[in-house]
Amino acid sequence: MNRNIVRRKNLLYLEIARCIEKQIETAVLKVGDKLPSIRMVCRQHGISMTTAQFAFYELEKKSLIAPRPRSGYYVSNTLKKRLDIPAASKPVNNKPAKSPKDVFEALYDAATQKNITFFSRGVPAEELLPIAKLNKELLRAMREMKGSGTLYEPLQGNENLRRQVARWSFSWKGNLAHDDIVTTAGCISAISYCMMALTKRGDTIAVESPCFYGILQLANSMGLKVLELPTSPQTGVDLDALKNVLSKNKVALCLFVSNFSNPLGSMMPDEHKRKAVQILEHYNVPLIEDDLYGDIYFGDSRPTCCKTYDESGNVLWCGSVSKTLAPGYRVGWVAPGKYKEAVSRVKLFHSLYSTSITHQVIAGFLENGRYEAHLRKFRHTLHTNYLQYVRVISEQFPAGTKISRPQGGLSIWIELPKGIDTMELYEDAMRNKISISPGGMFTLQQQFGNCMRLGYGLQWGDKVENGLKTIGRLARAYY
Amino acid sequence: MNRNIVRRKNLLYLEIARCIEKQIETAVLKVGDKLPSIRMVCRQHGISMTTAQFAFYELEKKSLIAPRPRSGYYVSNTLKKRLDIPAASKPVNNKPAKSPKDVFEALYDAATQKNITFFSRGVPAEELLPIAKLNKELLRAMREMKGSGTLYEPLQGNENLRRQVARWSFSWKGNLAHDDIVTTAGCISAISYCMMALTKRGDTIAVESPCFYGILQLANSMGLKVLELPTSPQTGVDLDALKNVLSKNKVALCLFVSNFSNPLGSMMPDEHKRKAVQILEHYNVPLIEDDLYGDIYFGDSRPTCCKTYDESGNVLWCGSVSKTLAPGYRVGWVAPGKYKEAVSRVKLFHSLYSTSITHQVIAGFLENGRYEAHLRKFRHTLHTNYLQYVRVISEQFPAGTKISRPQGGLSIWIELPKGIDTMELYEDAMRNKISISPGGMFTLQQQFGNCMRLGYGLQWGDKVENGLKTIGRLARAYY
Repeated sequence: MNRNIVRRKNLLYLEIARCIEKQIETAVLKVGDKLPSIRMVCRQHGISMTTAQFAFYELEKKSLIAPRPRSGYYVSNTLKKRLDIPAASKPVNNKPAKSPKDVFEALYDAATQKNITFFSRGVPAEELLPIAKLNKELLRAMREMKGSGTLYEPLQGNENLRRQVARWSFSWKGNLAHDDIVTTAGCISAISYCMMALTKRGDTIAVESPCFYGILQLANSMGLKVLELPTSPQTGVDLDALKNVLSKNKVALCLFVSNFSNPLGSMMPDEHKRKAVQILEHYNVPLIEDDLYGDIYFGDSRPTCCKTYDESGNVLWCGSVSKTLAPGYRVGWVAPGKYKEAVSRVKLFHSLYSTSITHQVIAGFLENGRYEAHLRKFRHTLHTNYLQYVRVISEQFPAGTKISRPQGGLSIWIELPKGIDTMELYEDAMRNKISISPGGMFTLQQQFGNCMRLGYGLQWGDKVENGLKTIGRLARAYY
Repeated sequence: MNRNIVRRKNLLYLEIARCIEKQIETAVLKVGDKLPSIRMVCRQHGISMTTAQFAFYELEKKSLIAPRPRSGYYVSNTLKKRLDIPAASKPVNNKPAKSPKDVFEALYDAATQKNITFFSRGVPAEELLPIAKLNKELLRAMREMKGSGTLYEPLQGNENLRRQVARWSFSWKGNLAHDDIVTTAGCISAISYCMMALTKRGDTIAVESPCFYGILQLANSMGLKVLELPTSPQTGVDLDALKNVLSKNKVALCLFVSNFSNPLGSMMPDEHKRKAVQILEHYNVPLIEDDLYGDIYFGDSRPTCCKTYDESGNVLWCGSVSKTLAPGYRVGWVAPGKYKEAVSRVKLFHSLYSTSITHQVIAGFLENGRYEAHLRKFRHTLHTNYLQYVRVISEQFPAGTKISRPQGGLSIWIELPKGIDTMELYEDAMRNKISISPGGMFTLQQQFGNCMRLGYGLQWGDKVENGLKTIGRLARAYY
């Protein structure tokens, strides 16, 4: 290729790129919109595939568009600046300084109030749930179940549900049989049963930091000590720190959200998962793996789990459909490995059975392929929401704001400039009918005072966009 | 009235009585059948009301018929012999001798097997549940609920359900407001939350003896010590023994089934309830009142609860519809009195919410009067079943067998002659596809080895009658 042609090609691809950029700037193409395919661009502009590809690379470099696996390119971001990712946490496990209880309960209490924009919400909004299709399954369950769901199910749980969860484990390279699984009333019940089976008052457990406040509160109420581990917003828990902690402390169990942790959105790479399983095996410490977000990935395929690499049954893998299908159905499960008998007995003693009919509905939904169809659309919506959040936050939040880059899940973690107290911001926001989750809730230590979690499982629209802008405005006022 | 007329009247009423007795003997009238009304008998036989009334008294004296409040007389019993009631229990609270775990789990596991007659079952059979009417409410809930039940409900539970339970408390002279109530996934969850809120490992609790094995196992698994209190099959826990135990031991809580205890069927008289509340108040020991059978009374009206007499909020009153409407729905509740905040937090930490849709269904069912209509029929069926059981047991069980006289509830307690081991009988019965609950399950002490619980919440018929006869035959073989 001589220099002229290169120059011409250069100009051409830049010209095409500039053309698309303009469409984005003038909002002809909006965040989340799909771009025409490369083939289409070739045809429309009479250019080669290579030129079109170069144009797209140029836009991608500017963070204006992003590829989505097996789908094409999407408008991702209209910002000129890219926000930094927060550094890995460095919790200091001294005495608990402050219980986040007050906000915790206030948040749950507020959850049914009207006219509040719930960035604090940990579950998807009604509009994102496949309600009509679930109702169809509900009618079928009512007609087909013996006793229409009024009777008890088997002790270990609905057999078809267990079969479907086992079948589904194939997607994360797991190899579960239906007999490995015990159903529960949502994921938190699964975790509660595991913790009751494996710990007693005074024991120590180790978790990621920041960590979902529900886990911290549960542990607290059970009289457990909590060690918080340094955690990267991208790759999850720091394995050297883990090893160090386990070698120096008697730890009853670890609890990790290996995929799209709440609140960071971090994902442990396969190699980390494998290594974590080895380390825990070595120190003979069971791992509760809270995999409730694993199906909500933005990447190419369903990520593996620690359970994928677990050969001895030391991992208690927990899941649910509360983040993807129906929070109010209370359907969850656990594959407790070698702790199955102990966990089953806790379930039996504390709750007997699960709700027969909702567990049957979910079994049917998983069985007939509706779950996968729903997830495709659902993941797309959430990814678009996430991109919209990044755009608005980049534009509206104070300079120096850092944000996590969730690779799936439902929440984004935001670090505001030092000096901004998100507890104060929480109060301010509530006065503006906006609910956020201040960072202090996600730790029992003195950290994350300038951080917050925002959930993007909402229906995107003006109300949500304006809500984000308001948070930005309130935050800037402190600065 | 001169002597002749008295004699003639005498003969006449005896003649009428004899006539009805013959119909019972020849099975023209069967156990559970309703007798013609007194007015009808007057008309048919051309006799006075007084004479007819005397005839009925005569039959009642012989235990052949029994009045049922506001309904008339029913054929109750064709037996000539009346079995004794077991004496009050005398547990000796030494070291736990034997954990009944193996049978316990085997029983639950067997619960979904086919072709077994489940005298061990603690819930009503499918045929006795108002399934069609519940399904109607299910459809309504699906149509009318926001998100068709896929969304979370308020933290304290479905507001309408709490309103209905509060309204219903009027029937036991209670005075609850909807805000006093926290919903739970069935009664056992309510009890589990209360126990977690009020005890820690190593604490001691006091219960009736015999006591439902689920409670014993739950306490055991939580590391609690259990004091078993002497209990009468008729009036429940012995209050002097209670006072004595509380004065000598540090007891974290008491748990009583004040109405139709499981397994005895005993009911604490009003005066005992009032006194128990005073005693526990005096010793500052909270009472968990497990009132899950209260609506299944055979008497004239809904019995009161300990909660009825509780002025300080020291009673945590628990209930559910698992024994009356839909075990598989997992709908229960607790009015935790002054412990409400503590219990609510345990619920929040361990399970978050209840299943939205089934709780809404039950709220609707209670609201529209269907519950009362169902209960009238249901109580009638259970009472008839109970009479049938007494008849067959009297005829078929070994001489010296004693049986409790439940005044409601779902189970009868049987004491076989000393020397018959009901654990062996259990194994024998299982080989005959019959499941019973051996007495050893209902204690952590060495007692009740010759006792068993039989549930009468089954659909009466040849299979059940033959099952009872088989148990009798097997028991006689030991003797």
